[in-house]
Amino acid sequence: MFVPGLIERKRDGGALTPGEWRDLVGAYHTGAVPDYQMAALLMAVFLRGMTREETAALLDAMVDSGRRLDLGHLGLPVVDKHSTGGVGDKVSLVLAPLAAACGLAVPMMSGRGLGHTGGTLDKLESIPGFRTGLSLDETMAQMAKLGVAMIGQTPEIAPVDKRLYAMRDVTATVECIPLIACSIMSKKLAEGLTGLVLDVKQGSGAFITDAAKSLELAQTMIRLGEDRGCPTVALLTAMDRPLGRACGNALEAEEAIMALRGEGPEDLMEETVAEAVEMVVLGRTNASAHRGTGAPAHGGTDAPTHRRTDVADRAAVEKEVRAALSSGRAAEKFQQMVEAQGGNPAVLEDPSVLPQAKEVEVYCAPRGGTVLRVEPRTIGRAVVEMGGGRTKSDDAVDPTVGFVITARPGQTVHASEPLASIFAKDAAGIALGRRALDLAVEIGDGKAEMLPLIAARVTAGGVEMLG
Amino acid sequence: MFVPGLIERKRDGGALTPGEWRDLVGAYHTGAVPDYQMAALLMAVFLRGMTREETAALLDAMVDSGRRLDLGHLGLPVVDKHSTGGVGDKVSLVLAPLAAACGLAVPMMSGRGLGHTGGTLDKLESIPGFRTGLSLDETMAQMAKLGVAMIGQTPEIAPVDKRLYAMRDVTATVECIPLIACSIMSKKLAEGLTGLVLDVKQGSGAFITDAAKSLELAQTMIRLGEDRGCPTVALLTAMDRPLGRACGNALEAEEAIMALRGEGPEDLMEETVAEAVEMVVLGRTNASAHRGTGAPAHGGTDAPTHRRTDVADRAAVEKEVRAALSSGRAAEKFQQMVEAQGGNPAVLEDPSVLPQAKEVEVYCAPRGGTVLRVEPRTIGRAVVEMGGGRTKSDDAVDPTVGFVITARPGQTVHASEPLASIFAKDAAGIALGRRALDLAVEIGDGKAEMLPLIAARVTAGGVEMLG
Repeated sequence: MFVPGLIERKRDGGALTPGEWRDLVGAYHTGAVPDYQMAALLMAVFLRGMTREETAALLDAMVDSGRRLDLGHLGLPVVDKHSTGGVGDKVSLVLAPLAAACGLAVPMMSGRGLGHTGGTLDKLESIPGFRTGLSLDETMAQMAKLGVAMIGQTPEIAPVDKRLYAMRDVTATVECIPLIACSIMSKKLAEGLTGLVLDVKQGSGAFITDAAKSLELAQTMIRLGEDRGCPTVALLTAMDRPLGRACGNALEAEEAIMALRGEGPEDLMEETVAEAVEMVVLGRTNASAHRGTGAPAHGGTDAPTHRRTDVADRAAVEKEVRAALSSGRAAEKFQQMVEAQGGNPAVLEDPSVLPQAKEVEVYCAPRGGTVLRVEPRTIGRAVVEMGGGRTKSDDAVDPTVGFVITARPGQTVHASEPLASIFAKDAAGIALGRRALDLAVEIGDGKAEMLPLIAARVTAGGVEMLG
Repeated sequence: MFVPGLIERKRDGGALTPGEWRDLVGAYHTGAVPDYQMAALLMAVFLRGMTREETAALLDAMVDSGRRLDLGHLGLPVVDKHSTGGVGDKVSLVLAPLAAACGLAVPMMSGRGLGHTGGTLDKLESIPGFRTGLSLDETMAQMAKLGVAMIGQTPEIAPVDKRLYAMRDVTATVECIPLIACSIMSKKLAEGLTGLVLDVKQGSGAFITDAAKSLELAQTMIRLGEDRGCPTVALLTAMDRPLGRACGNALEAEEAIMALRGEGPEDLMEETVAEAVEMVVLGRTNASAHRGTGAPAHGGTDAPTHRRTDVADRAAVEKEVRAALSSGRAAEKFQQMVEAQGGNPAVLEDPSVLPQAKEVEVYCAPRGGTVLRVEPRTIGRAVVEMGGGRTKSDDAVDPTVGFVITARPGQTVHASEPLASIFAKDAAGIALGRRALDLAVEIGDGKAEMLPLIAARVTAGGVEMLG
């Protein structure tokens, strides 16, 4: 393998063969190909793109760089969700135990906060004692016991992805659809899933703000999943405003606990239930397809029988999902998981065991009118600046800081009406938060323009507009 | 300095400021910016280009990464030549002592063979004992004594260039005009020159085969030199066939020695004399411009007075140059240099002190007709395969192998007439050489199409077609 020749071909707009991608990633994994050659190649990929075949080959090589979970012995559908990330997006904390309470196995591997967006691991770790760094063996044992675990990427899973991601982050090669798709899907496919739900965010607070590109990303990941025997569905959801009210790690954990009791903000509840329905439907139809044919759910391009769930079925599944919330079964599953992973299970009854901010201040409307926008990127950046996020990957995170924003776009407010609470470690943090709200919350006399909460459902079969 | 932000700007087609280039190269030099960030940036530069201002800023930062020679105390014009490299191009070995014999100081820093082209250092080192690895202090001492030294790039000169070049070589970012121009000019400007002649090769055996691009490279380097007070002239010369007859290190050294006696092949003599004339003219007019104005020769964009050399002057200079050859003064200078640099000075009278190939075979015309082509790239690659060049930068080189090709394009030959001699270390090498000649030497019934030996003379003022 002559690596400069491969880089040159990609540089000039050509394609590498699947075998070349496999050899290249293998050699990168062993250290035979140095970072600088990979960095040059990734920049060429960024500017020249990749064919479908290349993207698939890169993905397979990334998955093959590590271990794969095998949860087949549990006898349950193994379904996970991935979100492309947003501000106030605490859906995973509710969804994983909820889906497990509905009979799915959910081995959820998540990430940390990056840039303006929060991370599921940081939110979980705001619960005193909660460990996200389980080994693969610990994870397997917990899955057998509870059917759910929420962990970080272990060193055994797609190790090449971890190195590639760290390098892309510092070489301006992050925002590239095939590379994003391979990074996400390599971890998910290594979980040994029988189904995957993707939450692809759209709008100014999403990583990819361009609507056409977010759809392209969704479709790229769906194709990669389906072709590898993992039925995959994506929901395109709104990130032109924060999701729910809380933004900041412990504040979001608290809101997630409210949602597990069925008492979360309306948008959070609606999105969580919608994703849970997709997960359960994927799990069930896939399992029945198993029973029907006796064949395992891979091999890919055949007619997707797991798509034939009619509206009546979906309504029944939604009822089940809502019952798992109202009955307390989802909350109970969460509590068991918190306890199993070393966290304080009292958090469920008494959220005050979560770390509390030193300073709290109410933010009031500077004028009356209609709330036209609550800009999520401004809010997310402010949380980082106040100490609740990272600018470097090894930064410590203050779990207490953030916002609870009750004002919603479209709402009519009076001057001096409370719109939000600011949580900070000191007066300077409060001032930062106030400035951020001044910028983020726009009040005027026009009409608020918002993306639909769930704009579309994307499957291998096509795009179904919902919003 | 946020490096990913700089890479991103270049990736998206923007420009870095001169200050950003300076800081970036400085941080790369100290190790604060790792190779992989520089590799990603260079690939973005390759695909997006650089503005004139950026190229100039990169060049200055590269020169500033090391020391500069100061030969002002010699009281001589300091003029060098750089060739973009070709097959059979042994001009430097003749030119440096010839120009020194004409009263110039020539601190010639050269490279090794790379790819299909030979390198001046390898050719010199075929002379038993010859050392090209002089320190900067040794070089200064020899310059004071002889006015000429032929050395490799010392660690003190443009050290960043050395690192960048090594990385570009393995990341497919070599063939990029602004990067090539900066690499060449950083070393030349660090020599403290008062004039520079560029030999930019054109045709199938050149590194840049595209005529428009080779002119662009010449003009880029001329602008960079002129703007920094180093009057620069380029000749565009033919590399659609080997230069002279010998290809291979010791064989070329032997041919260069013949040329120093005035007995080299016609094309080699013509090109060497033309370049020597340019060097002497540059040195003289620049020196007289000094005397005339009392001002040093920098500041750049003023009217280039050093260009006003009329044809009569040039003819007189050419006479002088030819006299330096015929009188033996150039040869004597070469002999003194060989001796000063540890080589066996007897080589001048007795070329058989050069290492001799074990196997020699005459290659004869397989048919009669006109020699239509002698393809230099095929010949150059064959020398490498026979052991006379490098595929990795630390490969050892066999000085004895190569070709002496007497057949010239345009010449009429009879079947079985000797066209070349093959020099190899064994029978396998002879077979390799024979196959290469079968491919490279095309005999037919048409008319040979050749580039003019010297197609054009390029200055800051414009392009003068000569061919």
